[in-house]
Amino acid sequence: MRASKYLFSTLKETPNDAQVVSHQLMLRAGMVRPLASGLYNWLPTGLKVLKKVENIVREEMNKSGAIEVEMPVVQPAELWQESARWEQYGPELLRFKDRGNRDFVLGPTHEEVITDLVRREVSSYKQLPLNLYQIQTKFRDEVRPRFGVMRGREFLMKDAYSFHTTKESLQETYEVMYQTYSNIFNRLGLDFRAVQADTGSIGGSASHEFQVLAQSGEDDIVFSTESDYAANIELAEAITVGERQAATAVMELIDTPNAKTIADLVEQYNLSADKIIKTLVVKGATEAQPLVALIIRGDHELNEVKAQKLPEVAEPLEFADEVVIREKIGAGVGSLGPINLTIPVIVDRSVAIMSDFVTGANIDGKHYFNVNWERDVPLPKVADLRNVVEGDPSPDGKGTLLIKRGIEVGHIFQLGDKYSKAMNATVQGEDGRLETMIMGCYGIGVSRVVAAAIEQSNDDRGIIWPTDAIAPFTVAIVPMNMQKSESVAKYAEELYRTLLSQGVDVILDDRKERPGVMFADMELIGVPHMIVIGEKNLAKGEIEYKNRRIGEKQMISKDQLLDFIKSQINK
Amino acid sequence: MRASKYLFSTLKETPNDAQVVSHQLMLRAGMVRPLASGLYNWLPTGLKVLKKVENIVREEMNKSGAIEVEMPVVQPAELWQESARWEQYGPELLRFKDRGNRDFVLGPTHEEVITDLVRREVSSYKQLPLNLYQIQTKFRDEVRPRFGVMRGREFLMKDAYSFHTTKESLQETYEVMYQTYSNIFNRLGLDFRAVQADTGSIGGSASHEFQVLAQSGEDDIVFSTESDYAANIELAEAITVGERQAATAVMELIDTPNAKTIADLVEQYNLSADKIIKTLVVKGATEAQPLVALIIRGDHELNEVKAQKLPEVAEPLEFADEVVIREKIGAGVGSLGPINLTIPVIVDRSVAIMSDFVTGANIDGKHYFNVNWERDVPLPKVADLRNVVEGDPSPDGKGTLLIKRGIEVGHIFQLGDKYSKAMNATVQGEDGRLETMIMGCYGIGVSRVVAAAIEQSNDDRGIIWPTDAIAPFTVAIVPMNMQKSESVAKYAEELYRTLLSQGVDVILDDRKERPGVMFADMELIGVPHMIVIGEKNLAKGEIEYKNRRIGEKQMISKDQLLDFIKSQINK
Repeated sequence: MRASKYLFSTLKETPNDAQVVSHQLMLRAGMVRPLASGLYNWLPTGLKVLKKVENIVREEMNKSGAIEVEMPVVQPAELWQESARWEQYGPELLRFKDRGNRDFVLGPTHEEVITDLVRREVSSYKQLPLNLYQIQTKFRDEVRPRFGVMRGREFLMKDAYSFHTTKESLQETYEVMYQTYSNIFNRLGLDFRAVQADTGSIGGSASHEFQVLAQSGEDDIVFSTESDYAANIELAEAITVGERQAATAVMELIDTPNAKTIADLVEQYNLSADKIIKTLVVKGATEAQPLVALIIRGDHELNEVKAQKLPEVAEPLEFADEVVIREKIGAGVGSLGPINLTIPVIVDRSVAIMSDFVTGANIDGKHYFNVNWERDVPLPKVADLRNVVEGDPSPDGKGTLLIKRGIEVGHIFQLGDKYSKAMNATVQGEDGRLETMIMGCYGIGVSRVVAAAIEQSNDDRGIIWPTDAIAPFTVAIVPMNMQKSESVAKYAEELYRTLLSQGVDVILDDRKERPGVMFADMELIGVPHMIVIGEKNLAKGEIEYKNRRIGEKQMISKDQLLDFIKSQINK
Repeated sequence: MRASKYLFSTLKETPNDAQVVSHQLMLRAGMVRPLASGLYNWLPTGLKVLKKVENIVREEMNKSGAIEVEMPVVQPAELWQESARWEQYGPELLRFKDRGNRDFVLGPTHEEVITDLVRREVSSYKQLPLNLYQIQTKFRDEVRPRFGVMRGREFLMKDAYSFHTTKESLQETYEVMYQTYSNIFNRLGLDFRAVQADTGSIGGSASHEFQVLAQSGEDDIVFSTESDYAANIELAEAITVGERQAATAVMELIDTPNAKTIADLVEQYNLSADKIIKTLVVKGATEAQPLVALIIRGDHELNEVKAQKLPEVAEPLEFADEVVIREKIGAGVGSLGPINLTIPVIVDRSVAIMSDFVTGANIDGKHYFNVNWERDVPLPKVADLRNVVEGDPSPDGKGTLLIKRGIEVGHIFQLGDKYSKAMNATVQGEDGRLETMIMGCYGIGVSRVVAAAIEQSNDDRGIIWPTDAIAPFTVAIVPMNMQKSESVAKYAEELYRTLLSQGVDVILDDRKERPGVMFADMELIGVPHMIVIGEKNLAKGEIEYKNRRIGEKQMISKDQLLDFIKSQINK
C-alpha cells in the first residue's frame, strides 16, 4: 500500500468522549469512526486488523474440525418464541416487524437458528458430533454502549455450536474448544486467563471465560498465588477460615441516630467494618416467603450470582422495595439485623464465625452491639454469599487469591439440552429411538479482541501490536525527502516492490509530509518494523531500522537489509 | 476435508417450491437452506463457494486501488432524512426503532453512510480521488422474495463509492471499475455482458449493468448483431425505419361491441396488430395536465423508463385510474384514441409513420378504421416510447438487435453530486474554495453471483462450476470400499494428505456409503476433478480420473497422478 493512496485519518488530539485507552487509540489511529451510539464504521487501518484477527480465528476453528456456516442477521420471531427467549430476553433483543407485519429480531446470538437448522439436517447419531461455527455480524441493543467497539451494539462475533448425543462427546468437544481458544489467544499474543464462569441466563452446566488481563476490564477475575485455579469473581467460592471466638461482652441496645451505613458506624463508634454485619433484604422465590434477608460482613460485597442460586431467593436477584421492608419489619434499611426478624435469614460463612458483632436492631436509629450467635440469636442458615477478596484461601486448597481486572474475549459453555429440548431437536440413537441432542456453544468477540489487544499493549506514542500477525501493516518504509532525492526514491520504490513480491504486508510512506508526521503516524497505528531511508545513510550503504516494541534505532547494512527484516518479523 | 466429518445435506428430490434451476440445485447440493422468506442459512458447501467468490472480488478490487472499509448494517435515520431518501424509498427500506425510540434502517445500500464518513474524513482535493469499498450484509425488504438467494431479502454485496472533484477523475475511476468488473466476471468464468443501463432512482448520469446471460434472468438485454452495442432494454433506443405511406382508404367509425383489446380486434376484424394503435393514459407531471395519453403500436410494449423521463409525464410512471379516465374522456380504456382527445398526446416514433390504422374512438364499443395522421387528426408530439424488439436497427447504426435474458450481477454508476450536494459533502479545492465532491458507486451482488454461475452452468446431475476457482472443493478422492480394502484406504489417505499439504482444496469421501451415493454427491455439488480409487486398478498401478465438465473417465498411472491432477486444475 502506498500511503498517498491510503485513507489514514489519524488524529493528533485524543477525542474527549473516549474513556479507555483502546477507544482513544482506535479513534486516533483512524481505525474506527462512530456512526451512531454503539455503531462504528471500520476504516481501512481498523478493518485490516479486524480481518487478520478473523483469519486467525477461522484457521484455528478449521483446524479443530469445526465447520463454517453462515446464518442471517435477521431472524424470525417464531424460533425465539419456541425457545421462550422471546419473553425472557430483555430490550437488548432488538425486535421489529417486516413490511408484512411479521415479527423479527436482529440476532444477538444464534442458538435458536442453529438448533432449527440442525434438527432439520441431522437425523442420526451417526452424523454427530457436529460443531458448526460462523463469523458474523451481531446486534445487541445495549442500554449504555461504551468503550468504543469493546461494548458496541453491532459487533463481529465468532459463534460455534456443537451437537452430541452423549455428555462424554460434549465434554470432548468442549476440551477441544478450550484448547483451540487457548491457541487462538496465544497466536494473538494476548496475556489471557481461562477462568471458570457462571453459565448465566444462557443456561447449562460447565463454562469458562477467556479473559484478557487489563486495568480497564469490566470483570473481576480471581487467581490462586500457587495453583492454576482461576475463576470469574461471580463463581469463585469464598472459603472462610478460622472458628467462632467465645463472647466477651454483654449485648447492648445503643442509640445510633446518625448511623445509617457501615461507614457511619465505623466512623462514629470507632469500630472495624469486619465487626459489623450488613443485612440486605431481597425478594423471595415464593409467594409464601416474599422477602429474604441476606447477611454479609460489613467489609464484604454481596455476590448476586451466588445469592440468586439459593432456593429461597428469587432469580434474577432483586432487592426489596424500601416501603415493603418498612411495612414488614418496621425499620428502614439502615437499621436492619437478624434479631427478632420474622423473615427467612441466610448468613454468609464469614458472618457465621463472628462474635461480639454489631447489627441493626430493626428499630430506626438503634443498633445492638456485642451480639453473639446462639447466645443472643439463633444462627440462621449459612451459605457462601460474598465475593472473594484478595488473600482469601484458594478454593483448591493451594495458595491464596489474587484479583485482577479482565476483558472477556471468549466464552465456552456446555449448554446441555436447554435449546434442543425446548425446540425438540432429536436424532435417532443407536437403539433406534429418538434422543434429544445436547449442545455446547463457544463464542469469541472478534471486534472486541482488537480493542483488548490495544488495551493491553500501547505506549504514549500509540499502539504496540502484541504480534506482527495482527498489525495493520508489518513493515513501513519511510523515505526522507523522497520527492527531492532521486537515490532515496529509487531505493524506496525497489524495496517496496521487493517486499510486496515476497508477500510482506508493507506500506510505503510516499506522502509529501514532514518526517515527524510520517514517524508519528506509523508509530500511532503500530507498524512493528520501520525502515527509514535517508540520502546520507544510503550513500554510506546503511539503512535505519526501528522496532516499534523495542523502540531503539539500528543501522543495517544495505546488503543485509532484506534478510534482517525477515528475521525480525514475528520475533 | 473428510466427508465423514462434513455436513453434506444433499437432497435426492428437487424441492417443489424452487422455480429456477439455481435455486433447485443450491437446495439439492446442500448449499443453502431457507430460514424465512428471503432469508437463507449458508451451509458449508454454499459458504465455501460464496467465500471463494468474495475473495476474487476482494483481490480485484484491491488491485484496482480501491480501499476496503466496513460500515454497519444498522444505520441511523437522520442520514436518510438528510438525503431525502427517508421519504423517497419505498417499503423495501426496513425501518425500526431502537430501545431509545430512535429511528434506524437496515441498510439496503450505503450512499448516505459513506458520504457522511467521507465529508468528515476528507477535507482537501489532495486526498482525492478515493474509492472505498466493503463486502457486507445488506437487507432489502422485497415484496416478493424469489429464486432463492437470487432475490433474497438479506444478501452479501460488494459496494464501492468513489469521490472526486472533477468529472474527468470520476470518468477515470468509472473506467477502472468497468475494467475491474470485467476482470472479476472473467475470472469467475461467467458469460456476461456489460450493458448501458438507466440510472433509475439512485440518480446520476452514466451507468452500466453487468449481466450474466441466462434464460431465467429477469432483465431483457439488447445486443447488436454486428457491433459491441449492448444495453438494458429499459435504455435501448428504438430506431424506427421507413416513412409514412399515403392514405388509401376513407376513415370509418365502426361498431366494435366485443373488442376491448388489441387481441380482440385482431381476431374479430382480421387485422394485423401493427395496423392498430394502443392508447394508454398515465398521470401527468403537473396539476394543470393531470392526464397524458401515450400511444404505441398494437404489437409493441410501452417502455416505462423512457415514458417517465418525458417532461409531461409524472415520475415514477403511474397509470391513470379507470374512473378518472371515463370521467375525463367519456369512454373506457378499451376504446381510447387520439381523435377528439382533450388531453396531451405523445405518440411513439413507429406510430408516427403508420397510415390507414385503427384506433379507439373515445366512444364505448366503437373504433375508427383507416385513420391517417394530418388528414384525420393532427400528428401529436413524437417520442421514443416503446421497448425495442428483435430485428430493430442497432442505435449505433451497425447491424440489428437481438434480445436475451440476463441476471444483473453488477452495476456501476456515475452518481454526480446527488448525495454529496444533499449532504453538503465538500472539500477545499485547488483555489482554496469549498467544492461539492462528485461520486461514483459500484455494486456486485456477491451471493447472487453464486446463483447466476449455477444458472449458467449445470446438467441433470448437478452443478458444473464455470471455474475450479469457485468450486466448493477442487478435487474429490472417492475410494471404493475403503472400510474393507487396506490398500485402497492406505493410498487414499496418503493422496489426501499429499494434496492437502500442497494447498489443494480436497475432499476425501471416507463415508460408509455406496459408490453411487458418493459419485452422485460429488457431481451434484460440482467438484471438478474426481479421483476414484479401486482395489483392482490400484493393484495394476492405475487410478481412475473423471472430469466433471467433460464427463469421461480416464485411467492414469499411479506415478503420474499428482502431476496429472495439477495439470488439470483450472484448465
